[in-house]
Order: sequence, then C-alpha cells, then structure tokens
Amino acid sequence: MSRQTVRVTFQPEGRAVFVLAGTTLVEAAGQAGIVLSQPCGGEGTCGKCRVEVLENAPEPTDADRRHLSPSELAAGWRLACQLSVGADLVVSVPQETRFFEQMILSEGESCQYPFQPNLRKQLIDVPPASIEDQRSDLDRLKAAIGNGALRADLSLIRALPGLLRSGPQPLTAVLEGDEIQWLEPGDTTGGLWGIAFDIGTTSVVGTLMDLTDGSSRCVASRTNPQVHFGDDVVTRIGFAERTPDGLDRLRKRLLTGLNEIIEEVCDTAQIEPEAVYEVVAVGNTTMSHIFLGIDPSPIAHAPYVAVCRGAVDLKAVEAGLEVNGNANLHVLPNIAGFVGSDTVAVVLASGMALRDEPTLAIDIGTNGEVVVGNRRRLIACSCAAGPAFEGARIRHGMRATDGAVSKVVLNAGIEVGVIGGGRAAGICGSGLVDAVAELLSAGVIDETGRIADPQSAAHLPDRLRRAILEFEGQPAVVLVEAADSRTGQPVLLTQKDVREVQLAKAAVHAGIEVVCRELGLDPREVPRVLMAGGFGTFIRRSQAQRIGLLPAVPTDRIESIGNAAAAGAKVVLACTKCRAEAERISRETEYVELAARPDFQTAYMEAMTFPPRA
Amino acid sequence: MSRQTVRVTFQPEGRAVFVLAGTTLVEAAGQAGIVLSQPCGGEGTCGKCRVEVLENAPEPTDADRRHLSPSELAAGWRLACQLSVGADLVVSVPQETRFFEQMILSEGESCQYPFQPNLRKQLIDVPPASIEDQRSDLDRLKAAIGNGALRADLSLIRALPGLLRSGPQPLTAVLEGDEIQWLEPGDTTGGLWGIAFDIGTTSVVGTLMDLTDGSSRCVASRTNPQVHFGDDVVTRIGFAERTPDGLDRLRKRLLTGLNEIIEEVCDTAQIEPEAVYEVVAVGNTTMSHIFLGIDPSPIAHAPYVAVCRGAVDLKAVEAGLEVNGNANLHVLPNIAGFVGSDTVAVVLASGMALRDEPTLAIDIGTNGEVVVGNRRRLIACSCAAGPAFEGARIRHGMRATDGAVSKVVLNAGIEVGVIGGGRAAGICGSGLVDAVAELLSAGVIDETGRIADPQSAAHLPDRLRRAILEFEGQPAVVLVEAADSRTGQPVLLTQKDVREVQLAKAAVHAGIEVVCRELGLDPREVPRVLMAGGFGTFIRRSQAQRIGLLPAVPTDRIESIGNAAAAGAKVVLACTKCRAEAERISRETEYVELAARPDFQTAYMEAMTFPPRA
Repeated sequence: MSRQTVRVTFQPEGRAVFVLAGTTLVEAAGQAGIVLSQPCGGEGTCGKCRVEVLENAPEPTDADRRHLSPSELAAGWRLACQLSVGADLVVSVPQETRFFEQMILSEGESCQYPFQPNLRKQLIDVPPASIEDQRSDLDRLKAAIGNGALRADLSLIRALPGLLRSGPQPLTAVLEGDEIQWLEPGDTTGGLWGIAFDIGTTSVVGTLMDLTDGSSRCVASRTNPQVHFGDDVVTRIGFAERTPDGLDRLRKRLLTGLNEIIEEVCDTAQIEPEAVYEVVAVGNTTMSHIFLGIDPSPIAHAPYVAVCRGAVDLKAVEAGLEVNGNANLHVLPNIAGFVGSDTVAVVLASGMALRDEPTLAIDIGTNGEVVVGNRRRLIACSCAAGPAFEGARIRHGMRATDGAVSKVVLNAGIEVGVIGGGRAAGICGSGLVDAVAELLSAGVIDETGRIADPQSAAHLPDRLRRAILEFEGQPAVVLVEAADSRTGQPVLLTQKDVREVQLAKAAVHAGIEVVCRELGLDPREVPRVLMAGGFGTFIRRSQAQRIGLLPAVPTDRIESIGNAAAAGAKVVLACTKCRAEAERISRETEYVELAARPDFQTAYMEAMTFPPRA
Repeated sequence: MSRQTVRVTFQPEGRAVFVLAGTTLVEAAGQAGIVLSQPCGGEGTCGKCRVEVLENAPEPTDADRRHLSPSELAAGWRLACQLSVGADLVVSVPQETRFFEQMILSEGESCQYPFQPNLRKQLIDVPPASIEDQRSDLDRLKAAIGNGALRADLSLIRALPGLLRSGPQPLTAVLEGDEIQWLEPGDTTGGLWGIAFDIGTTSVVGTLMDLTDGSSRCVASRTNPQVHFGDDVVTRIGFAERTPDGLDRLRKRLLTGLNEIIEEVCDTAQIEPEAVYEVVAVGNTTMSHIFLGIDPSPIAHAPYVAVCRGAVDLKAVEAGLEVNGNANLHVLPNIAGFVGSDTVAVVLASGMALRDEPTLAIDIGTNGEVVVGNRRRLIACSCAAGPAFEGARIRHGMRATDGAVSKVVLNAGIEVGVIGGGRAAGICGSGLVDAVAELLSAGVIDETGRIADPQSAAHLPDRLRRAILEFEGQPAVVLVEAADSRTGQPVLLTQKDVREVQLAKAAVHAGIEVVCRELGLDPREVPRVLMAGGFGTFIRRSQAQRIGLLPAVPTDRIESIGNAAAAGAKVVLACTKCRAEAERISRETEYVELAARPDFQTAYMEAMTFPPRA
C-alpha cells in the first residue's frame, strides 16, 4: 500500500536517503543529516534554501522564478523548501545554504561565530644561538613565533634542544591560545585537525574538522558502547554505583567507541591521529561526568545535582583519547544535572542567546530538554518524556534506522515511508507521531486517546475500519501488514502505544508551558520554535502540533535543526570565543526543576488529552 | 700558636659556632648562617643590628649607649657589629634584626616583600544541595569559599562527591592563587607548609616554612648527591651527554638528596610530608635543568645557552618530590646559561632591583656570578673563577666545614681560626684569602704573587721567615704545623696555591670591572657591595679588598649577606608577587658574555697582580 519511494543523493557528501514521493527536499536533506537554512520557515519567501539539482531538476515553481535568475534556473538551482520530490534526484548543497555552516563560515555582519579556532600553525625559522645571541632555546623560539608572552609545557621544553638542533629544516609551531603546544619538523602547516564529539546516551557522533578552514571533513557515529550496561542514564549511574570499578568500566567502554570513531574519521580523511590537535566534546551531564571519570551518582538521587557544572580542559590523552599527545580536550559546561553541555551546544548553535526575540528550543531524546529565551534571559527544564519517541516501550518501536516507519500518511489507505526504502521492520518516533496525528484527524483515535472499537467504528471509511483489530484485549491499528506470513510481522499501533505517546507528549508540553510562563510568554505566541536532535529532524511540524507535542504557533515559525548538539560542538571547535559564550549560557541559564513545581503537575494533567480537531 | 677560640650559640636556632676571640658578633652570626641587618655597614651608627646577649654580656660600647636605653643595656641588648667576642656567649637574635626576615616580615613602608603566600587555607561549610539549591558540587564549594572564579583541577573534581558527602564536619580548602588545590576533612587550617630549596652544585639546602605566618621552622642540607658524577656542572653535563639515561640518573640522584631533606625537616617539625603544599626551588641553570629533566648540554658548549630561561611550574610529585600530591613546584627563572635562578634569588633577596642607588652583588662558588645595577638596569656576568675558593686545586684545600682553617691572622706569629674549633685539617676559601692578604701585607708575598725565598727573606721577622720552606722546588708557607708527627700533616700555602688565588681573583675582579663599566660606574665608587654565598659569609671584607678580589670601596659599603639564594627562594615562598618580580629580573637583566669581550681579557691580565701595599 506504500506510495512510491524515491532516492535523493546529496553532494558533496554523497549521502543518499529514500523518501516518500511528495516529501519536500528540505525534509529529505534533514533525513540525510543536512540542515538547510530556512529563515522564512519554508514559505518560499526568503530564497535562502537554494540548492543545485544536478539530475532530474523539476519544473521551477513561482517562488523559484521570483528568487532565481533565468540562468540559475537553467543550471538547475531551486529553492529546497518548494521542491516536492517526485523522482530520484542528485542535489548539491552549497555551504551558504547550510544552517550551521552559514553561522560559522560566512563573512561580514551576518556571521555570528567567526572562524577563529583555538589552534593555528605557523611556519618558523628559529635562528641558532650564537655568542652574540645567547637567548635560551625557548626565548628564541618565542621570538621566532613573534610573541614573547607564549607559554610552553615542560614536555615541549624537554624536547626543545633536540627539535631545534635537528638540522637546517624549518619547523612548524602548533599554537593553542597563548600556549605553544608543539613543534613539528618541516612544513606541516597544511595539516591541522580537530574532532568534535557529541556523546549521547544512545549514540556517539564525531566530526573531523579541518582547522585550517573550518570545514567539516567527515562524520562517523557509533552506538554508545555503554548501552551494554543499560539504556538510560539512571541505569548506568546505578551500574557505576553498585559495581566495583563500575565508573571506570563505563568510561573505558565509551572510550572504545570514541577511539573507533577517531580511527574511522582519520582513515577516511587519510590523516594520522597524531595530526588531531584538539577535541571538543558535548554530552548530557551524566555522559560528560563518566567520560571525565567523575562519579555521576549525585545526578541520579534527589536533589539531582551535577558534581561539576563548568567546562573542563585537559590533555586528550589523559582522558584516554588516541590523538596527538599534546592535544587539548575541551568538554563544554553543563547547566544542571539533567540539562547538559549538549543543551548548551544547542543554544549556541541555534544562536538563540544572541537574539532579541525569544526562541523555544526542544531536544527530545530519552529526556526532553527544553530551553526558552533570548539574549537577556534563558530558562531550561528537563522533561521526563520517557523513551517512547526513541521507540522504546512501543510494541513495534525501534530507533530511526533502516527499516523504521518514519512517516505515515492516510490517503485512500495507510501509506508509510520506511527509512532506507526497504521493508518495514517497526516504527520510530516520527512515524509514531505521524500515525497518532493522522489517526486522530481521521477520527480513529479520539481526544482522550482511545482507539475506536472495530465493532462500533461505523463512521470510518472502510479501509481504516478494516485496519483496526483487537490486540491483547484492546483495539490496535495495523500500519503495515505482514509482508511475509512465515517470517514477517505486521507493524501495529496498540492502545498501549497511544497511551505512551500521551504520557510523553504531555511531559514535553507541560515543560514548555512552565518555562514559557516563567518567561511571561504564552507558548502559542513564541516567535521561533526549534526542534533539535534526530527525532526533531524526522518529525513533521504540523503533526507534532496535531498531537499537542508542540505549541500551536503558526507552522512557519517551527524549524527542524537536526543534531544541533553536534553542531554546537563544531561551533566551539571552529570559534574559540564561543567558549566564553558557552560558559555564560551555562552559568546564566535558569534551571527549573519541574518535580518541585505544582504548576507543572497541573499542566501535565491537562496536557494528557489530545487537542480537539481544528 | 692559635689564639683562643670561643663558642657563640645563637637562639632560637640553638646553633653554635667556634670563632677566634676578637671576631665581631656579626661575623660569628654569619658563620652560623644568620645574616644580620647592617644598613650602616658595621659602623655602629644605625643601631639596626641589636641582639640580646643572654649569657656573658660584655661591657656596653659608646655606640651601644647611644642606641640602646639603660634598661635594654641592663637586659643584655647590644649592637652586634660593635661586639668583639671575648668569651663564650649565648645570643638571641630577634626577627627584626635579621636581614632577610626583616625584608619579608616587617610591616609598613619598610616592608619590601609583604607576607602574601600563594597558598592559604580556609575553613568552610559547604551546604548540601537541595531541590531549592541545585547548584553543582563545585559551584556550591566555590560559593562557600566566596569566589566563583576559582579554578579546580580534574583530580579535585573527581574527589569532590566523596569529600562533600563525608559527613557533617567542616572542610578546609587549600587555595593556591586562583585555584582550589585541595579539600581536607575537618579543620586543618593550623598546618600549612612550604619548602624552599637552594640547589647548588655542591650542596643542597632546604628550609621548611610555616605558611600561616612566614616563619622558617627548620633547615636541612646535604651534599648534592650528584657530586658522585663530578664536582662541577660541566663534568656533570658531560656525564649526561655520554651516558645512556645519564640525565635521568643525575636527576634521580639529586631527588634522593631533596627527598632526604624533606623527610628531615618534616621529622624535625613533626609534620607529615603531606602537609607540604608548595615548593620553591632555585639553582644554577644546569641544576635547574637537570632537576626538571631538561637536557642541559647546550649550556656546556658554545654559545652556552639555556634551553629554558623562564620559570617553570608543575606538580611537585611530577618532579619526583615526596610532598602533597597536589603541591605546586615553582622553579624560579634563570638569566643565562651560566647565571641561574640562584642569582635571580640573590637579586631578589638583596632588594637591589628595588633601589635607586646601584648595588654590586657577588656570589662566589665554582663560578662567580656578578650582578650590578639598580631598579632601572641590571647587568650580570659569570666569571670562570675556578674552584680555588671552594678549596679545590689547592694543596691543602677543603670546603668550609669542620677542621677548615677559615681565618688567618699574623701577630707575633701565624694564628688561625678553625671551623668547629678542633684541629686544623686543611684550609677553605676564606682562610686562603686571609692567608694571602696577611702574607701580602707582611711582605712574605710580593705584588707579583711570588713567595719570598727563605734564603733571601732577611727583611722578615724571624717567626715569619722560619714559616717559609721549600716545597716541590718552590717556596711555601707553613700556616699550621703538624700536630702529630705520625698522622698529622702541616697546612701549607704553596706557591702554586697563590697562583690559583691570583687566577681566581683576577677573573672575579675583571668581571666586576666589565659589568660596572658597562653601567658607566667606576667599581671603586659603587655605593653598596654585597657578598653572597658560603664563601661570602666567612670572608673578611678588608682582606678580600687587600688581594684585589673586591673593589677598593670604603669597607663599610661591603656587606656579607650569607646564603642569599636560599633567602630569595624563601622570599618567593612567602611573597607571591615576587614571582612577577623574579620574572622581570630574569628577563631584564643584561647578560654579558665575558669570553666575547676584548675589554675583559685586558682587565683580566691587569688584575692578575696584587694591589700595592697601602
């Protein structure tokens, strides 16, 4: 019953995704992890989301004709928000169309975070000492670099006599802030690399960045190897508390994954891990604590505090990362025990702390972190949304990987989009939201969340009525029929699944309500709503609003910004001054503990039902 | 033939020395390592060198009566510079009479280096976290200390959850500059200790300082265990260059001595080495390099440069010192390859870089370091004086330890003072200077340095003439006759010994000449001359001038300031702001390489003969 699935390939990444025909190109790019800039919210009025369609360019739309010249149109340039994908496409996405790259790399006034990495290389020629010039080795080195106030670590000083007397070749100084990090023989100014890590509870992503120009070279990800010890942070903290060396075992597990990523990105870029001179990491507070070998147990018990809020700097090798022995590791600061540096990174990447108008940013994973505010005030909370949107506790739930139903459309019947384009194996968070929203609109599910009884669903079209069956004594909806009677299984949405969605969306909705009210703002009046994270990438805005997960703002105010935590880590790698900005965000963001707020309980109860049909 | 030897005991140290009757109390104190303040140069006009004679107080002098009240005189107070020791004495030296202590500890305008150690302890009460106060452990700790900008090392952060949850007891924070160094359970504010090391080529001295009040608790010293590998720095550098692991073996040898000193001073003060939270070290450039594991070989070969001039900070345990695991080690900066941090410490302790009038400071060991200047300009050089003044290459030479002839007086015959008061076993540097000076004045040695031939010395008094004999074909003078014909040996001054003295004093004299001229100063017009180091403590000013070692300034301008390098290390331990001052001295002092100066060669040749008789 599925609609046609088409393949869209994005360049220069070479990344391909399969989407249902009719999907916008912006949405397809999001599935490929590429977030396009859409200041107008996808209305086709700003002309910022321009891409070059290399194969199968469709007819230009009116909006295309308004914003692009005839020669551009002839060359295949189109606005991604207006392009409804109808056939296999190959699309090239320029840097200036990308949401985060634009932020880091563009020049001039629009550039919020200039490319100013903490590291730089400088080719130098240190004159030998002489009777006329008896300055010490280190003083001559500093003079050759042109800054007498630089600092140097004892390990460099120890290596200095050998390095300076190794022959007549020039040397390359690796400079980090006001410190001489190392000297390399010869001219190595061409190779200067950094890695930005986003350490999530479920998955870990590393991006290799060329620190000579700020471009992201390649990305690799792994399931966080700690999942072996439990799916969520509380279980892992429990393991650390109960098991001798538990913390260290968790830490070393994580390091296995991080070091595999380092190896993979270095292999892909054909560089040595020795050329990686700086690492930036973000994560939720528990992940950061474990990564740094800090006991996270206070986070798991009331009053749920972090041991360390601020940023931590240390040598990457001391943390166990297999990169250059002098590379610095910068772990961004947290906000609270359940709002970590990944949220600081989202705030940073979204630019919300620089604007006058308030932004509401939502990052939904196992927990939902919500931040609202502007450059003057930021308020955050953590909603115990539970893992429903990650596919856990859902009958046929799964993560947003190949085989997951990520899109559900009700037309003549139930049509689904499957990640990877193959056979449906289960349903992920965005598919779940779609399914519930569509079934709500069709009247299969009522406002209280009850699925219509098959016997009494006479008001429904035949095909929908036939999709309802009884499962474990309650009604359920067949989203995908079993493809194969022997091995295949149908993908169902059960009554219990709908209840899980209600609990999860109510937690997020109530959290949004509390922090917006704290700021004196009606959630329905927020000028800008950002959805971060994998879930936020796949979800459709109108559907999230239909089930009451997102506030009822005009849809064009809602943007999906993809893995903004990873983007924030890259911003900090590319732009040193962001470290101070991150510290400010960490220190000044007001954390609201929902468990202690009576108004949260009320809002939570009220948000449990679905909004009435429009 | 020796004059009467008397014993002087100094309190509160309880240190006793044996001196010839007639020695001034200032000189006796110097032999005990206690440097008294003498702004007037020992003329009895300033009244600053007041001490309390507890036993056998002699009759007051006129100067005593001018500067001390009748009740003070009755209580035994005297001016040390006017007191000629005639009998065994017990003397108490108050803090304000001590040269260096006065500098550090006095209050008000006269205080050049206020007591402001880098370390302090603070008793704190960190409130537990609550739902109303969800600040992180570290943020609550910083707030309890009262400074949110403090930094903390990862090792402290890792220990924090345990420390803050160890019970209801208060905690003591150990604060170092803007860093929280550690937390200790309970109230430990009473115990805060530091050690100042002076690492000499020949001996190593460590002083334990109570960092709650800046008082020196006890001192211990050892022969530098590296002497096993050679007497001078060049030999040791050669060992490091030729031997596999040579540098590391030298370093570990030194550490044995330093750790023995730490153990000894802690035993004496009855504290745990864990309570030592800061270490400051000075030494010549080679010793500092070896101590820090930096290859010193560039120092030994033209153009004789240091690898590292600036100060180095690291954890003391990383350098191998057995003190508190978080203690900082601060190694002071050097000036050049042959003018080390010990000279910076001398400049610092002497206060010469703070004054308008120029000071000439001379520290004679195996090398003689000379610095001249004032607060605007400082010029230094290193004179290859050779080890003659340390007793090396001298027929009966020995170091200034028990049994060394340290004073020689010609009266009816040759009278000698022996360190420790026992039998003479040899002669040390100050005895050598005395002997040459006295024999010059008596005409036994002529201006060219030739000892009178016994056959042709008819102009000499009988007793002197009889002291001259022939030794290995050249004349020699018997300073002490063999006490015992079977085991004893006489102490001779040979013609070759006199030549060694001429070479050594000419090097120092010419060095002084060059640096003073560089400053536009006639050496004979320098307003203040300071003699530092063990040799400088024992030497008599007029005798040093008699042989031409010191310039012919009025004697009252010359002061012996004892182990000023060790005192400088203590100053830095007691007064943090001195670190910046030391860096300024290190950076701004102009180093003159004598080997490259034609005017040095001329001055050296001219200084070879002795000054004519007055």
